[in-house]
Amino acid sequence: MIIVLKQNAQEKNIEQITKELESLGLAAHVSRGETTTIIGVIGDKTKLTGKNLDLMPGVEKIVAITESYKLANKQFHTSATVVKIGDVEIGGDKLVVMAGPCAVESRLQLLETAQAVKKGGASILRGGVYKPRTSPYSFQGLEEEGLKYMREARNQTGLKIVCEVTSAHAIELCAQYVDILQIGARNMQNFELLKFAGKSGLPILLKRGLSATIDEWLNAAEYILSEGNPNVILCERGIRTYETATRNTLDLSAVPVIKAKSHLPVIVDPSHACGVRAYVPALSKAAVACGCDGLILEVHPHPEAALSDGAQSLNPEDFEKLMGELKPLAKIMGRLMA
Amino acid sequence: MIIVLKQNAQEKNIEQITKELESLGLAAHVSRGETTTIIGVIGDKTKLTGKNLDLMPGVEKIVAITESYKLANKQFHTSATVVKIGDVEIGGDKLVVMAGPCAVESRLQLLETAQAVKKGGASILRGGVYKPRTSPYSFQGLEEEGLKYMREARNQTGLKIVCEVTSAHAIELCAQYVDILQIGARNMQNFELLKFAGKSGLPILLKRGLSATIDEWLNAAEYILSEGNPNVILCERGIRTYETATRNTLDLSAVPVIKAKSHLPVIVDPSHACGVRAYVPALSKAAVACGCDGLILEVHPHPEAALSDGAQSLNPEDFEKLMGELKPLAKIMGRLMA
Amino acid sequence: MIIVLKQNAQEKNIEQITKELESLGLAAHVSRGETTTIIGVIGDKTKLTGKNLDLMPGVEKIVAITESYKLANKQFHTSATVVKIGDVEIGGDKLVVMAGPCAVESRLQLLETAQAVKKGGASILRGGVYKPRTSPYSFQGLEEEGLKYMREARNQTGLKIVCEVTSAHAIELCAQYVDILQIGARNMQNFELLKFAGKSGLPILLKRGLSATIDEWLNAAEYILSEGNPNVILCERGIRTYETATRNTLDLSAVPVIKAKSHLPVIVDPSHACGVRAYVPALSKAAVACGCDGLILEVHPHPEAALSDGAQSLNPEDFEKLMGELKPLAKIMGRLMA
Amino acid sequence: MIIVLKQNAQEKNIEQITKELESLGLAAHVSRGETTTIIGVIGDKTKLTGKNLDLMPGVEKIVAITESYKLANKQFHTSATVVKIGDVEIGGDKLVVMAGPCAVESRLQLLETAQAVKKGGASILRGGVYKPRTSPYSFQGLEEEGLKYMREARNQTGLKIVCEVTSAHAIELCAQYVDILQIGARNMQNFELLKFAGKSGLPILLKRGLSATIDEWLNAAEYILSEGNPNVILCERGIRTYETATRNTLDLSAVPVIKAKSHLPVIVDPSHACGVRAYVPALSKAAVACGCDGLILEVHPHPEAALSDGAQSLNPEDFEKLMGELKPLAKIMGRLMA
Repeated sequence: MIIVLKQNAQEKNIEQITKELESLGLAAHVSRGETTTIIGVIGDKTKLTGKNLDLMPGVEKIVAITESYKLANKQFHTSATVVKIGDVEIGGDKLVVMAGPCAVESRLQLLETAQAVKKGGASILRGGVYKPRTSPYSFQGLEEEGLKYMREARNQTGLKIVCEVTSAHAIELCAQYVDILQIGARNMQNFELLKFAGKSGLPILLKRGLSATIDEWLNAAEYILSEGNPNVILCERGIRTYETATRNTLDLSAVPVIKAKSHLPVIVDPSHACGVRAYVPALSKAAVACGCDGLILEVHPHPEAALSDGAQSLNPEDFEKLMGELKPLAKIMGRLMA
Repeated sequence: MIIVLKQNAQEKNIEQITKELESLGLAAHVSRGETTTIIGVIGDKTKLTGKNLDLMPGVEKIVAITESYKLANKQFHTSATVVKIGDVEIGGDKLVVMAGPCAVESRLQLLETAQAVKKGGASILRGGVYKPRTSPYSFQGLEEEGLKYMREARNQTGLKIVCEVTSAHAIELCAQYVDILQIGARNMQNFELLKFAGKSGLPILLKRGLSATIDEWLNAAEYILSEGNPNVILCERGIRTYETATRNTLDLSAVPVIKAKSHLPVIVDPSHACGVRAYVPALSKAAVACGCDGLILEVHPHPEAALSDGAQSLNPEDFEKLMGELKPLAKIMGRLMA
Repeated sequence: MIIVLKQNAQEKNIEQITKELESLGLAAHVSRGETTTIIGVIGDKTKLTGKNLDLMPGVEKIVAITESYKLANKQFHTSATVVKIGDVEIGGDKLVVMAGPCAVESRLQLLETAQAVKKGGASILRGGVYKPRTSPYSFQGLEEEGLKYMREARNQTGLKIVCEVTSAHAIELCAQYVDILQIGARNMQNFELLKFAGKSGLPILLKRGLSATIDEWLNAAEYILSEGNPNVILCERGIRTYETATRNTLDLSAVPVIKAKSHLPVIVDPSHACGVRAYVPALSKAAVACGCDGLILEVHPHPEAALSDGAQSLNPEDFEKLMGELKPLAKIMGRLMA
Repeated sequence: MIIVLKQNAQEKNIEQITKELESLGLAAHVSRGETTTIIGVIGDKTKLTGKNLDLMPGVEKIVAITESYKLANKQFHTSATVVKIGDVEIGGDKLVVMAGPCAVESRLQLLETAQAVKKGGASILRGGVYKPRTSPYSFQGLEEEGLKYMREARNQTGLKIVCEVTSAHAIELCAQYVDILQIGARNMQNFELLKFAGKSGLPILLKRGLSATIDEWLNAAEYILSEGNPNVILCERGIRTYETATRNTLDLSAVPVIKAKSHLPVIVDPSHACGVRAYVPALSKAAVACGCDGLILEVHPHPEAALSDGAQSLNPEDFEKLMGELKPLAKIMGRLMA
């Protein structure tokens, strides 16, 4: 941490800041430039909690040098994390594909989709039973009934299952049915939910918030990790920009950035990012080529009748075709597909 | 709702869409242009739930014409809503000022602040006891202990009190102590929390999400209103943009937009929006001049020692000075100050 | 400037960097933290041109401490700049209002508008004769014919005149007719145009780019100032965000930020920022209340027939009404109006 | 085009609008909904120039249905455009790689780079001689001297050459030396420059503006095309968002969107988009996998000594390695590499 002083800062200001830092057990390293003087702060910065150095006389601003997340930080945990869900490994040498409908709508719809994505090569079935919807008048999900269908699909196909949770209550219920809990984009900074999810002990699929920086996203992961739960899978799903040709802007640079800054696996959701079925295959390929650990794709047996996000869902034929096209790409990237 | 057809759409596509609409009890109004044909959909659009018209053959896109929020919509509720908290009215002819520390840190800190903001002319005391913080290692709030101090401050000063809630549990607890529940920016689309807050029966201060459109914000209000709770106060608090000179970008155009689209009162939080104490007075004045119903300001007796957001807090002297400067502005805008 | 080293940086890296800096006549100030070592660079940073310190072995990143603009910087030029155009002063104790049509369309339209805005209290007439339009098929402006009408309006009313320039050729021509040259948002980083405008010797109204940071905007001003032209007037006109209820998002926090960082006057254009006539009065008042030096407003005698931006133009009656409402606000802000 | 009426619009408003449209030779198609009435406008919309229908009594808003660009639109020009520069074809079955330094710094630097990128497999040499720089104190380019070096490099290697132009003067000069003119991001809406570039007859590499929508970008291409110049190559180079881990956010979804909306070839610049050398390989692969027609990459023989953008430049070894890795990817995508 660096304290940048004002041009007109006085010697007594520097003394006061130095004294304050030393009283907290920190060292101050003063560096006098031609126009600006800076003070480097050396030692454990958590000792500064509750000290607003930026408001001390003579201080222009504070510049942070190190990241605030520790457990998610590659600097302190250099080997890549592999999240294991039974025999499915995320972050290892396989490219893992999660697929399924945005929302579980009925037993038949789900079982049909599960068979289709199994056949296409997915290893995890996705399906929402608690749907966070912009309008209260949109379909809100089947809740526990949907979880039962998910479980039935798991039994039939052997696919692992992932469901989004939107409340502590939903976590308690889902924990009885699913293999992975998903925290959605809108709840990425719902810190109470993150802590509760961390305590569940289940692997957590943590989507990036619509307007979250990568730094905030890794800090959100830190909430889960700091509950003693090491199994966090990050998911890039598009960020909010001014562009309107796509629903959101898929930020694929997040993949190499995460790989540089963290040891956690990262997957990509092109379906929600672009919101248009026709763009999903190209973005899926791009995601694989830039080194992601997996994909999460929306597949619906009859997209034109979907209760949620039909416009971006692939049908089973498109999905199978895309999976076939991804295989040689994955191979080049050093990844196997199921 | 308008269905725009593809250039190569065929007559049978138009027939199929028309038939589909009619089967749902809706009317189709076909309009053939030189290059593009459109179909206007007439009738109750909720009948379209679960029908993805955009995936029907020949369809290019769907264009929504009317807003999805109804209870928050000025078109269906033309008179301005005034939220009453005892003798304090928000949305009426007074400019209401809420003030206090970002976080309740101690009994003494809070009581000192409460006296100061009361003296300065505030009518509502703010103070966080559940703090949503980017990093799990930052101060997270005093919880119920803080609520007790808030209540004591209320008893001493007569100020009404508002606290942020971040979980159903926090709502249950806060409801026993406070006058207004605040939903923070990060939870604006935590729909479970919105429903629960709606059911509490207490007035809700709903902050705009960091990257929420005004349309999404009014839809979030709709979640509360549709639980039978009409007392929603909107709060503009800055949106996320690329600019870094301020923490967020205060979107004051939201004030006249909300006044045009909704009947709900809207207040402004310049402290969190800009994140820099020096800019708070100018933005407070601007907010009053563009017609907001009130302000929420961070005030701390010793900002340099604040546990949260000290950099943007006014001290009691600055607050009192600002309140004095706001008075003639409020008067010109046809508003009284306490 | 601070050089932050990698965690695994070696002693020889530090030596190499230090040697490099010293060879350039700069001093290095090494500060060893518990996990991170930083090097403060002391001396004239222009000596570093062409040296990419961030690529030297062991370097994690470079953190700039001081701004790159000098002539526009308040630190080196503490008194406020007042731009004088005859008897009109921008940046002084008067609130200056520029008004007129987006585009000059005809002699009659312009003269009618000029009379109207003169009557309403404007002191400068705006009117575009070179129109940068998104589509090549939109009206592109009357060019020199329009300049002649502007000049005639100036003669009739005594108003000063300002026109946007979009090329070196336009600057040469406009310099013969107008009092102020405007650089529009789309050309804010058209550096050739900035240099040419700087050389013209005329006062320059420099609009903020649609997605320009305040730092980039002040650097653009630096291009003009460094040509020996001190008469730059900044104009905030809305930035691009994801919000769609307004055309752009007016960033009024730019006003106090500019006042803190620069000595240049700053005016506000609410018309282009919001793009909706109904929101212009509220935003104009807000702009005045947060301390701007003036406003630029679109006024058209018959907005419904305007060739450009009619939707955001005030008619003469609305303009006169707004000017009346601004007067007491300006007075409170310590500003006179003509 | 659709005119949406206000809820309280009266029959006489509808009549007036209909009459207005008919007087212009357009047809009006009125569609009365339960709460909202809309009017479809049928015929040539250019007849509406100078008519602000949105200001007519009873009008709520105008909704555009068709794009304003015609020549760039795939609907009216369905076969893909292939831009030919001698024996190099962009938009055909080859993946074209442009590479070279951000700025031409010296004869030796350029010739060394040219040999290296030729060896690595590039077919076009890039190199800036007019540098648009944020600060006037940064290196601004070698201008004509640099063009001569570019030409010499062309003669030595057989590579085609591309240079950015920033003024009409630069276009005149560059036209004597280079094969392709580049319009940079900051000048994407410098319409005078676009027209002038269109008139040059040379192929134009048109970079997307930092905050340009795809629609605006295609309209900028339209400026060039409408001068009778069909040889436009689009280049996605990152857009401005709130994320700070990368310089800009590479929007790879632009590639499939452009392929859906336009017939023009599109290449990708990962170097400027991310600004960090370490992320360039992953993003280059992603770009190829999502179907772009080529890449433009920054390569510098000694990035640590580059006068501009060294931090994002590959050195010749990295470039050659990346080219080797791209080859099998390109092949899967049905593209050959030189």
